[in-house]
Amino acid sequence: MTKDTIRIIVAGPRGRMGSEALQLIDRTAHFELVAAIDRKNGGKRISDIDGLPASDAVIYEDAAVCLDEVQADVLIDLTIPETGYKHMRLAIEHGVRPVVGTSGFTEEQVGELEKLSEEKGIGAIIAPNFAIGAVLMMQFAKQAAKYFPTVEIIEKHHDQKLDAPSGTAVKTAQLIQEVREPARQGHPDEKETMPGARGADVDGMRIHSVRLPGLVAHQEVIFGAPGEQFTVKHDSFNRASFMSGVELAVDRVMKMEVLAYGLENILE
Amino acid sequence: MTKDTIRIIVAGPRGRMGSEALQLIDRTAHFELVAAIDRKNGGKRISDIDGLPASDAVIYEDAAVCLDEVQADVLIDLTIPETGYKHMRLAIEHGVRPVVGTSGFTEEQVGELEKLSEEKGIGAIIAPNFAIGAVLMMQFAKQAAKYFPTVEIIEKHHDQKLDAPSGTAVKTAQLIQEVREPARQGHPDEKETMPGARGADVDGMRIHSVRLPGLVAHQEVIFGAPGEQFTVKHDSFNRASFMSGVELAVDRVMKMEVLAYGLENILE
Amino acid sequence: MTKDTIRIIVAGPRGRMGSEALQLIDRTAHFELVAAIDRKNGGKRISDIDGLPASDAVIYEDAAVCLDEVQADVLIDLTIPETGYKHMRLAIEHGVRPVVGTSGFTEEQVGELEKLSEEKGIGAIIAPNFAIGAVLMMQFAKQAAKYFPTVEIIEKHHDQKLDAPSGTAVKTAQLIQEVREPARQGHPDEKETMPGARGADVDGMRIHSVRLPGLVAHQEVIFGAPGEQFTVKHDSFNRASFMSGVELAVDRVMKMEVLAYGLENILE
Amino acid sequence: MTKDTIRIIVAGPRGRMGSEALQLIDRTAHFELVAAIDRKNGGKRISDIDGLPASDAVIYEDAAVCLDEVQADVLIDLTIPETGYKHMRLAIEHGVRPVVGTSGFTEEQVGELEKLSEEKGIGAIIAPNFAIGAVLMMQFAKQAAKYFPTVEIIEKHHDQKLDAPSGTAVKTAQLIQEVREPARQGHPDEKETMPGARGADVDGMRIHSVRLPGLVAHQEVIFGAPGEQFTVKHDSFNRASFMSGVELAVDRVMKMEVLAYGLENILE
Repeated sequence: MTKDTIRIIVAGPRGRMGSEALQLIDRTAHFELVAAIDRKNGGKRISDIDGLPASDAVIYEDAAVCLDEVQADVLIDLTIPETGYKHMRLAIEHGVRPVVGTSGFTEEQVGELEKLSEEKGIGAIIAPNFAIGAVLMMQFAKQAAKYFPTVEIIEKHHDQKLDAPSGTAVKTAQLIQEVREPARQGHPDEKETMPGARGADVDGMRIHSVRLPGLVAHQEVIFGAPGEQFTVKHDSFNRASFMSGVELAVDRVMKMEVLAYGLENILE
Repeated sequence: MTKDTIRIIVAGPRGRMGSEALQLIDRTAHFELVAAIDRKNGGKRISDIDGLPASDAVIYEDAAVCLDEVQADVLIDLTIPETGYKHMRLAIEHGVRPVVGTSGFTEEQVGELEKLSEEKGIGAIIAPNFAIGAVLMMQFAKQAAKYFPTVEIIEKHHDQKLDAPSGTAVKTAQLIQEVREPARQGHPDEKETMPGARGADVDGMRIHSVRLPGLVAHQEVIFGAPGEQFTVKHDSFNRASFMSGVELAVDRVMKMEVLAYGLENILE
Repeated sequence: MTKDTIRIIVAGPRGRMGSEALQLIDRTAHFELVAAIDRKNGGKRISDIDGLPASDAVIYEDAAVCLDEVQADVLIDLTIPETGYKHMRLAIEHGVRPVVGTSGFTEEQVGELEKLSEEKGIGAIIAPNFAIGAVLMMQFAKQAAKYFPTVEIIEKHHDQKLDAPSGTAVKTAQLIQEVREPARQGHPDEKETMPGARGADVDGMRIHSVRLPGLVAHQEVIFGAPGEQFTVKHDSFNRASFMSGVELAVDRVMKMEVLAYGLENILE
Repeated sequence: MTKDTIRIIVAGPRGRMGSEALQLIDRTAHFELVAAIDRKNGGKRISDIDGLPASDAVIYEDAAVCLDEVQADVLIDLTIPETGYKHMRLAIEHGVRPVVGTSGFTEEQVGELEKLSEEKGIGAIIAPNFAIGAVLMMQFAKQAAKYFPTVEIIEKHHDQKLDAPSGTAVKTAQLIQEVREPARQGHPDEKETMPGARGADVDGMRIHSVRLPGLVAHQEVIFGAPGEQFTVKHDSFNRASFMSGVELAVDRVMKMEVLAYGLENILE
């Protein structure tokens, strides 16, 4: 079965994620790049920009003009939150389904967009994380925690990362908290002979953050029970890992008439 | 909230799994051992048998007599298929909910038991595998394969195991087959310079069986996609790993009025 | 080539390690159990004690008498430090090579034993850890740290363990310290948003201690460098893991005329 | 202690490995790029070539002229075997120490170069693999196999790889063969219900090759013994992993007066 072609506008085509999206469109038979929105290069073609694919799609600096002039089905926005919010409103108003990658919207903004999306009957997706593997890891971890409430998280990243634990580890712990009763793990009389050995404490669960040169982004969630160990693990080696989620979101948003927040809500 | 006490009969109390079940009952506050069914030792008490817990529960050699004389809620049967089948019928007929660990029933037998269970409105559970971790691994693998169709399975066991691949690996592959289109993995021109290097082939998926002294029972299901790797893994260190599944089954069967086949069908 | 039979006395035959040693001797063709030293059961035979192998070897309560009366080559001592020290002196004086498993001797005691061993020309081995895998892990970690100075240790144990980090993790870090310049790892501006996330700090290296039910004793030493990750890992599933080290020590001590402290010093 | 500056010529500066070498030199305080040898671009400067570092070093098309005109200590050659062989001879004759990355020389060629190196008293290094992690993995695997003769190798690569098993896996198995007696592993009555499940057979050892999109180059060598598992593992995420070996080789070759074949022979 041939899939119908989906006409796509990309906002932020020169960004690291945006340029990956252009490549995704380039290699996906039923995706077609019809325009791009960029802060500069207005009037040029994508193929005029060094390092971007050979596409005739025209670059617009004004999102409203772009959406007025170009017939499109989906807007992929991989810019910054403020821009993304404006683009998303504009897209829905123009009947173009937005797929936006950001964790930077306020609750109020998400509420407004939800309302607008429902009024217009135009599907929309906001995803803080497009890596399907990361999303599955978090979903499965939450599900497993119902049966295995004793759990520790080990996340490993390159040593240029500033925060520990990682946002994904914190998010995973929060999801597990929804189904797990707080309980201090380890022996009641356990002693840290070196402070920090037992990691960060979240309701008695433990999170450990490894930082080493060479690593990229890795996390494992380990559940222990008498006689067994259950592990869910995700390794992200490069940004290409986000593109399977973008592809899925573009296909799904075409069949949606409301807004979905989080990739987990469009997985079957 | 205090849970109501569940009165339990154990069939096969001296077997390796049966004796683990006695210990499970012993350490679970709302479980009570009320009798046991054994080929021998009729009339003795559990505490009379070397290595079994200090329980006054009486041993019966005749299952029908046991079920007639003893007030029970659940029968845990960890014997062999023929005996298990008879016990299961008898239990349902006596209004006692059976929890049976076996993969040895014919489809016909399962059908008959399903019918009987429904007629009597008595819940029943047949589980080929009581290790919740193993069951979750298989369920998650099937779910992940919808998004990541490129997958290989590595299973590792002690070197006394006769068959390769393991039953769990084969079962996992079958579940993945339900959601994955057959597709040959690896490079189209791939060459094995040593036969067997690429493992066993199931619709293009690959299974690898490691056998080493010291190991117990381990499996990981590895999914690959551009830029990422997703893994679900289960390690079973000893038979205690089956007991969390038995405990769950006993609690769940009390609220059921039909038969469930497979632990996966009683997980939420 | 048939190996010459080695005649062995075991001190502490009913202990957890001692009974494993009896089984080791039982299954090793060129090992022969000639006597045992125990606090009680003097005059009985090993086969008289429940759970021990079918051996005619006689049990002595007095170590000196045992060593006087029985022709032996090696004494395996798996008792407590005070007893072990006395037995070790007695053995060397009787020309019997001692293999002793303990980390409890003072430096002074080790010094005295070293001197005695050298005077008599009788080989002797004291091993704080008989698991060859654990010893190799530590040796290799030290060696790798010469080339990869950026390293973190993750150790995982059952949740009944009282101390964190484990003794093996601390020992590993100490060995690495011998070849690694102190250096703070991670980004200079790194922040723990949850205290403890980055683990325990040893000269800038990090140690993480996981405690979960079901686990036994596991450690991995992870080295990171641009573009690569190098890992040495040891999993101990049960006490049988110590016996390959005992076997090696018994064979090696027969060819030694001085004392060796630590299994690493008898590995080639 | 400040290290003396080492003056380096790079042959093959535009190749994938060569351009990594330029970056290595650029970021290493005591390394200085003094010239490059290339098939084209003669007379240009490195900084004239797109994507290469900002260096004034001049490019020569003729290696002999380059070595005549430029004062250098080391030649890093990352070209093809034929060219590498010529460059290596020329370098030694000019008193410049060559560091060459190739597995493509014949035994005869290596013999000639060894002789020449010795005659001139000029150190030289030929390395089939510059990834220190991979070399350590192989060395440690060989060492561990003395104590743990039961071993399986799992190597994982991206699915564009043509051959299975990988060259590194085959090399690792060969090194283990040097210290391990051939012995069929697994149960004597073991049966493959699906052919290939047990992997490739090397003297009874087993090798398993996983191929998945997203992966790069990974290998683990797993040893099993009663009650324990010992693992050495290497993950290569990108070509940067080769540069720590090149750096080490450049430093070591300065102190050598003969040829060394294989990075393992310059590790301490």
